[in-house]
Amino acid sequence: MRPGDTVRPGSAEEVAAVVRECYARRLPLVPLGAGTGFARGHETTGAEVVVDLGGLDRVRSFDPLLWRMEAEAGVALRTVQRLARENGLHFPVDPGAAELSHVGGAVATNAGGPHTFKYGSMRAWVLGLEAVLAPGELVRIGGPVRKDVAGYDLVSLLCGSEGTLGIVTAAWLRLAPAPAGSWPVVARAADAAALQAGVEQALASGVTPSALEFLDATSARAAGREGPMLIAEADGGEHERDALVEAIGGAPADPAELWRWREGVAYAVEALEGAKLSEDVCVPVDRLAELLDGHAGIAARHGLTPAAWGHAGDGNVHATFCHAPGDAARAERAAQDLFALAIDLGGTITGEHGIGLAKAGWLERQWPPAAVAAQEAIKRTLDPLGLLNPGKKAARPTGSRASA
Amino acid sequence: MRPGDTVRPGSAEEVAAVVRECYARRLPLVPLGAGTGFARGHETTGAEVVVDLGGLDRVRSFDPLLWRMEAEAGVALRTVQRLARENGLHFPVDPGAAELSHVGGAVATNAGGPHTFKYGSMRAWVLGLEAVLAPGELVRIGGPVRKDVAGYDLVSLLCGSEGTLGIVTAAWLRLAPAPAGSWPVVARAADAAALQAGVEQALASGVTPSALEFLDATSARAAGREGPMLIAEADGGEHERDALVEAIGGAPADPAELWRWREGVAYAVEALEGAKLSEDVCVPVDRLAELLDGHAGIAARHGLTPAAWGHAGDGNVHATFCHAPGDAARAERAAQDLFALAIDLGGTITGEHGIGLAKAGWLERQWPPAAVAAQEAIKRTLDPLGLLNPGKKAARPTGSRASA
Repeated sequence: MRPGDTVRPGSAEEVAAVVRECYARRLPLVPLGAGTGFARGHETTGAEVVVDLGGLDRVRSFDPLLWRMEAEAGVALRTVQRLARENGLHFPVDPGAAELSHVGGAVATNAGGPHTFKYGSMRAWVLGLEAVLAPGELVRIGGPVRKDVAGYDLVSLLCGSEGTLGIVTAAWLRLAPAPAGSWPVVARAADAAALQAGVEQALASGVTPSALEFLDATSARAAGREGPMLIAEADGGEHERDALVEAIGGAPADPAELWRWREGVAYAVEALEGAKLSEDVCVPVDRLAELLDGHAGIAARHGLTPAAWGHAGDGNVHATFCHAPGDAARAERAAQDLFALAIDLGGTITGEHGIGLAKAGWLERQWPPAAVAAQEAIKRTLDPLGLLNPGKKAARPTGSRASA
Repeated sequence: MRPGDTVRPGSAEEVAAVVRECYARRLPLVPLGAGTGFARGHETTGAEVVVDLGGLDRVRSFDPLLWRMEAEAGVALRTVQRLARENGLHFPVDPGAAELSHVGGAVATNAGGPHTFKYGSMRAWVLGLEAVLAPGELVRIGGPVRKDVAGYDLVSLLCGSEGTLGIVTAAWLRLAPAPAGSWPVVARAADAAALQAGVEQALASGVTPSALEFLDATSARAAGREGPMLIAEADGGEHERDALVEAIGGAPADPAELWRWREGVAYAVEALEGAKLSEDVCVPVDRLAELLDGHAGIAARHGLTPAAWGHAGDGNVHATFCHAPGDAARAERAAQDLFALAIDLGGTITGEHGIGLAKAGWLERQWPPAAVAAQEAIKRTLDPLGLLNPGKKAARPTGSRASA
């Protein structure tokens, strides 16, 4: 192995051997899933060994009657979803690229999606993990057990750690019975204030919507629809749909048609001006309108077209700056203002995409110094040579990190 | 402050000051909630300063329309549940001592209960934490935000860490709309094999039961009922109840009456012979019958009366050894065999009570060495002087821990 090489292990034991060799030879490494992440978490400088986990593509076990599956890191989420569906079950984690993205990447980023509002992020569906820890030890933590408080929650620590604390090779996943159906309700929302009011009305409906999404006028128009709009989905029955209709004043929509064009929104927005920068800031729900209005203001100041859509019920906005293909730097500068706004509103710079390189260094603006220090101490103690996905998820700008 | 003192801070800042002073003077400390834990996590040797968190008893904010609350560590869970209920909402974490136990203790142990089967343990309901980290820094991680993947998941790391990594002073809690109702269904189960079959039938019903509990003949008899029995509760509507009746062949029961006597079972079993030792081992659901039969065999070998009840759907059994008040040592020896059995069956020594002192040293039997080393490295890096709740949640028997 040399820097710049891509290796494709065929088993967890082979991943452990790669990490052992990298650790012995002080070679940095970058784990690679499907490569669908938005935060540049799988980007390489050419100096690392890329560990392509696509060869770990076996479903090791599937017990539909026990609501569980053990899947290797390279299994596509769509495979998990399909197997569940074919057996009357449900795996509700559906990030934007669910067709392509892998179990390992979804664990590494703690992936979300529209149905996170009711069902939680990836972590909520992981019972246990198999992972390689530095300097090359294959461990299993948890397993097909639904409750376990014996050790510190290393499963959660690895979920969302973006390959900087270990490399996930397999996950035991929890499944649930399929919901009764999908009954989306669509309502118009004149502006950001009306949108936030609509979200709060949905929360007061007595129903937990399975998704509570929104699109602003620009992103709706990109998809050939009229916006801005609020989408509240019920999945428990028609009585839930009726409660949502009454709460938000909307009308039922065809679920298959709705989710088909909704999933294409990111690409449709990209086509508006040829390129876009799309973030995933997240704020308390009662700050949603301020975030949306502030995002529009930032875009205006930078001479960019704003578009926004996403997971309104979670306060999680894909705040986007449309730009010409050659104009990425301006969008990057606008994104910095957006991150600062999200933090000012008591929110987070990332609700579901992660830090990667895209937001590296920003955590120290969001967290108090002692929490940043705890994160850095954990990184140093679990990856003492700093070889696991270097530079990713960094809490402080490179160069400012205190030495160990 | 001197070893053996109990201090009762009135604010999070005062907790930070106590930890700072303890760290400066190398005084060990034990955080104390309501003291209802079963794992001896709040036990003192007399050499520690006890930090009684009962003075932090304010609900700092409650936004029913936004489904959230910020509660200090000393707020009783019943207060959280009552406020939720009075506002059409639901806080589903209900450990055995919910009447007395505190938010801080529920976080520190990642508490469970009957409704964990559908709704998850305490962690699933915590959006953010305020905590004091060594050497005395008050930090806020997360907050009233529903999704956040900006940093490592320090919230999960603190949940269930039993006060060994920091002292939780407040939590932002998530709430949800109240379920439609409570429709328990009770079925007879002749033996452990029939019980496991009943659980699997409930899982095949198409419904996610809000609770899936069981009682063996002894524990049911202690409560004046006839067992063994399986209890499957629906909370989504009568159609769910009907599906569960069909699946497990049982009959509907009155929910208020059922949960009232069910909550008294632990005390009723204790009264059988004057004392008991009750554990909370947890196994994959398909190993439930082996666990129950094995537990009975262990009791017989040690000359003790077994009783078992608990969260069948989670494979989480309150495997109990009844004994005369003077015969605790024999029950302790039997419990060691029980822990070994749970690990042999691919399970865990604790599903919801935690390690405390009761199971200290057992994690190294359950986890691979590299995972144990990771836990110990995290403890050392976040509590370098080892002053936070010393000896609790220890992965290896005291004295065998490797030096840093």
